[in-house]
Amino acid sequence: MIDPVVQALIDALRGLPGVGPKSAQRMAYHLLQHDRGAAVRLSQSLLQAVDEIGHCERCHTFSRDRVCATCLDPARDPRLLCVVETPADQGALERSGSFRGLYFVLAGAVSPLDGIGVRDIGVGPLLTRASDGVVEEVVLATNFTADGEVTAHILTEQLRQRGLKVTRLARGVPVGSELEYVDLGTIAHALMDRR
Amino acid sequence: MIDPVVQALIDALRGLPGVGPKSAQRMAYHLLQHDRGAAVRLSQSLLQAVDEIGHCERCHTFSRDRVCATCLDPARDPRLLCVVETPADQGALERSGSFRGLYFVLAGAVSPLDGIGVRDIGVGPLLTRASDGVVEEVVLATNFTADGEVTAHILTEQLRQRGLKVTRLARGVPVGSELEYVDLGTIAHALMDRR
Ligand SMILES: [Zn+2]
Ligand SMILES: [Zn+2]
Repeated sequence: MIDPVVQALIDALRGLPGVGPKSAQRMAYHLLQHDRGAAVRLSQSLLQAVDEIGHCERCHTFSRDRVCATCLDPARDPRLLCVVETPADQGALERSGSFRGLYFVLAGAVSPLDGIGVRDIGVGPLLTRASDGVVEEVVLATNFTADGEVTAHILTEQLRQRGLKVTRLARGVPVGSELEYVDLGTIAHALMDRR
Repeated sequence: MIDPVVQALIDALRGLPGVGPKSAQRMAYHLLQHDRGAAVRLSQSLLQAVDEIGHCERCHTFSRDRVCATCLDPARDPRLLCVVETPADQGALERSGSFRGLYFVLAGAVSPLDGIGVRDIGVGPLLTRASDGVVEEVVLATNFTADGEVTAHILTEQLRQRGLKVTRLARGVPVGSELEYVDLGTIAHALMDRR
């Protein structure tokens, strides 16, 4: 008995990650009942983003311009290239304020179990980008998950073959955490990598 | 360093209920990176729903027509009127297949703490609708929450003053549940209302 137009909206909301059938219905009803302005704004923002946002041709992050502002920033050190899985990870590194090199954003991590290989995440363009004769060190900042570690492992081999220095973000105990509550794998790594 | 167009999309996604800043960013990045088709579909569904979906003038549920199919259904018993807080609640009752009367959908429940009173939820139109001379019994199916119970209490008084029979959905132990895991308030009500 749900109107097909409302049902189509519910189905479309399920296209958002993490939104199941119950939340999609709740979202649709909320928008139609209480906040049609928000629905119109969301509709317009989606279209505008799809129309205007592409990928920087140097680092592949989201960008309205062919080359993004970060890649064009003359204050950044072009000898350092940091590889991340997503623009969100790039954002986290930027917010730390501790990296002054350039970035390369993969399309995620390889995932052998899901059939996602090096070609799917853009390793080819990374190798081209890193072999520009200016990059000296590639900092691997893929996630410390199984898939992220496999990705880092593959990239390390391929980048070293091209004569590049390859480093990885340090593993260890998070700042502010109490040892008692840190998982054992992290403690083991922090011991191994002690300095 | 997030592009303003992407940021506008993130902000618009936060207009969805239950979506915080982190999920909004994850949703925006997912759509732009992996599923632009879903973004376009969602944009179109939102506009179409806002354009075409209004409220049935008899029962106030979502409807593309002035009067919805349920209100026009001659097989339904017009002497029975069931009052719910939302179209979603109406959907739950319909799926139970046990109600053959008509509905009236409030705009939520009164909430004294949030300053939401009887006028905000459409009690006036309900009283008019219930006083059409055909309705004999009003079944209150507001939620069994504090706000829903207050709403049911207010409606009971006002509807009885108009000479209508007012009933409330039965409280009790949910079908399929083990007593051990049922909350004590529910057990107390199930004992009081034993039959
Ligand atoms: Zn760039
Ligand atoms: Zn109706």
